[in-house]
Amino acid sequence: MTTTLTRMAAEVAEQPEAARRTLDHLLPQQAALRALARDRRRVLLVARGSSDNAAIYGRYLLETAAGVPAALAAPSVATHYRARLDLTDTVVVSVSQSGSTAEIVETQEWARGCGAATVAVSNVPGSPLLEAADLALATQAGPEVAVPATKTYLTQMLALGVVAAALGPEDAAEAAVADLDRVPDAVAGLLETDVTAAASALADARQVVVSGRGLLLGTALETALKMEETCLRPVRGYSYADLRHGPISVVGDGVLAVLVAAASGPLADAMAELADDLHQRGARVLGLGGTADFAARCDVHLAGPDLPETVEPVASIVPAQLMIERLARTLGLDPDNPRGLAKVTQTDR
Amino acid sequence: MTTTLTRMAAEVAEQPEAARRTLDHLLPQQAALRALARDRRRVLLVARGSSDNAAIYGRYLLETAAGVPAALAAPSVATHYRARLDLTDTVVVSVSQSGSTAEIVETQEWARGCGAATVAVSNVPGSPLLEAADLALATQAGPEVAVPATKTYLTQMLALGVVAAALGPEDAAEAAVADLDRVPDAVAGLLETDVTAAASALADARQVVVSGRGLLLGTALETALKMEETCLRPVRGYSYADLRHGPISVVGDGVLAVLVAAASGPLADAMAELADDLHQRGARVLGLGGTADFAARCDVHLAGPDLPETVEPVASIVPAQLMIERLARTLGLDPDNPRGLAKVTQTDR
Repeated sequence: MTTTLTRMAAEVAEQPEAARRTLDHLLPQQAALRALARDRRRVLLVARGSSDNAAIYGRYLLETAAGVPAALAAPSVATHYRARLDLTDTVVVSVSQSGSTAEIVETQEWARGCGAATVAVSNVPGSPLLEAADLALATQAGPEVAVPATKTYLTQMLALGVVAAALGPEDAAEAAVADLDRVPDAVAGLLETDVTAAASALADARQVVVSGRGLLLGTALETALKMEETCLRPVRGYSYADLRHGPISVVGDGVLAVLVAAASGPLADAMAELADDLHQRGARVLGLGGTADFAARCDVHLAGPDLPETVEPVASIVPAQLMIERLARTLGLDPDNPRGLAKVTQTDR
Repeated sequence: MTTTLTRMAAEVAEQPEAARRTLDHLLPQQAALRALARDRRRVLLVARGSSDNAAIYGRYLLETAAGVPAALAAPSVATHYRARLDLTDTVVVSVSQSGSTAEIVETQEWARGCGAATVAVSNVPGSPLLEAADLALATQAGPEVAVPATKTYLTQMLALGVVAAALGPEDAAEAAVADLDRVPDAVAGLLETDVTAAASALADARQVVVSGRGLLLGTALETALKMEETCLRPVRGYSYADLRHGPISVVGDGVLAVLVAAASGPLADAMAELADDLHQRGARVLGLGGTADFAARCDVHLAGPDLPETVEPVASIVPAQLMIERLARTLGLDPDNPRGLAKVTQTDR
C-alpha cells in the first residue's frame, strides 16, 4: 500500500474548510431564498449521479424538517418528452458539481419555461447552470481533481440544508442554522476514523449490498455508487423498505451488508433489527453510525458524527469516503481516476 | 423441465381477460376521477415493490401524456417522521395488490389528514386500502396465487392509464381510451413468444443488469425485481441515465445487459446506441421491444407489442414474465413460490 496521499484522500481531508467556506457563503442568501419561494408551495430537485444522492437527502429534509412537499424530477420528461407542466407553484433546485451537464442545464431552462422559480447549486462559478438560475448557490469546495466527488458532494448537502432552513418555518430557522454550523467540526472529528477493518471486510466480500433509510438513504446510495465507481465492483444500494420488500431474499453467505444508520430519530431502531435479519441469512454486517445497540450488532462498525439526524447525513458520508479510498488502494486501483469516468458527465447526446 | 403449467404461467396467460375486465370496470369511473381531481394540481403516488414499478410508469404517463406534475411519495415521511405537509392541491394515488400493506394504508390515511384527495388501486375488493379511499379503483385480475405479481401488476398499469386519461386534457381523453382498449389484444399476441434463447442467455450470464428509460423504465425495473425475486439472483435495474452516469464502468465480459426499449417516441433511438456501447465493453445484449434498428443490434431479441409508447409498457412486461418463468424452471426453482417471499408484504413492524 502506498503512503503518498491520493488526491481523493487530500480532498476528503479538505472538507472541514470546504464546509465552513460554503456555509459562510450561502447562509447570507437565506433571505433571497425566502423571497424567491414566496407563494410557491413545493420544491422539485433536478440532479444525476452523486448530486442525485445529495438531492435525495434534500428531499427528505425539505419534507420532514421544513414541511415543504419535495420530489425529484425525471429529466427526460423535460429534455426528451418536452412535457408542458404548470410549475408556477414550484421552486426548482438544480444540483450539479460542474454546472455544465447539458441535461441538467436544459431541464432548468425547461422548468423556467413552465413557470418555476429556479435555484442552482454548483461548485463552478460562472457555470451555465449558475448563470441561468434565478438564484445561484455556489458551493465553496474549491477545485476537485479526483474523479470521485467528495467535497463537492458534501457541500451540495450543506447547500440543500441552507435551502431547507430558509424555506421551513421561520421559528425553526435559527435552530436549523445552528445545527448546520456544527457540521464542519463534526466532519473534522471523523477524518481520523480507522477504516482498516472495514476495507478488509469489503475486500473479502463476494458481494456487497448497501442500505439506509429516510434522511440517511442518500448517504447509503452515495456509498454504493462511490464503491461501484471507485472500486469497479458491482454494488447494489437499496432503501431499507425496498430491500425488505423482496431483494432481501437473495442475501446469503458471502454477502457483506453495509448499513448506514441514524443515531437518533424515528428510524434509528429499525436498522438494528435489519442487522439481525441479515445475520440470520448468513450475511456479515458493516455498520456506519447508528445507535449503540446497532453498533453492538455489527461485525464491523464505523462511528458516525454526534449530530441531530437532520444534518447527520452531511458528515456521515466521511467514514464511507475514507473506507472506499482505502478499499480502492487495497484492490490495486487508483481512487483518483477509475476507468471509464469523466469529471463532467454527460448522460446524453 | 416439467410440462405441467406453473401457476405463474397460468396467471400470465390469463392477462388478456384480466386486462379486458379491468378496463370494463374502471373506464366508467373516469367522470368520478375528474370530479375528484377538480382544483387539484398534482398527483402523488404511494407504492412499494412491483406496485412501485407500476407507479413509476404512472408518473411518466401523467407528466408526459396528461401534463400533470406527478411524483412518488417516500412513505417513511408519513409513517415514521409524521411530517405535516399541505397536500390540499394533491390527488394521492395509492397502489397495492393486496390493499393490506400496513405502510401503504397508513400513508394513504396520513395523506388524507394532510388534505389530499385519495384514490386507491388494489386487486382485493373490500381491502382496507380500497375501503378507506375517496375513490376505489378495483383491478379485476382475479385471485393471484403465484407469489410473483403478474396479472395484478399489468392491471395496476391499466388502472394508472385510466387515471391519466381522466386527468389529462379532455380533448385527448378519447384517443387515450382507444389506446388502452388495444392492450388486451396486444397482450394476447405476445403470449406465444419463444423465450428459449432469452432464458438460455440469462442462465449462462455471470451477471445481469437491466436498463430502460422514460415510460419503459418501470418495465425495466420490474423485470429486474422479478428476476431477482423469482430466480434468486442479484440483478441490478438502472435507468438509462443512471447507468450511463457511472455504473456502466463496471460492465464487462460475462455481463448480460437486458435493455427494455420503446418502439417509438423520443427515446427509441438512444437504446440502440446504448446496445452498441455495452457490446464494446464486452457485454451481451438481450433486447426487449424497441425499433428494428435496436433489434438488429441485440444478441438475443424479444419482440414487444405494436402499441404507442404511452401504453406499450403495459404489454411489454409480458415477454419478460415468460422469460423469467422459463428461467426459474431452467434453474430448477419453483417460479410460484421462491424462498423468502410472502404474498402480502409488510415492509415494517
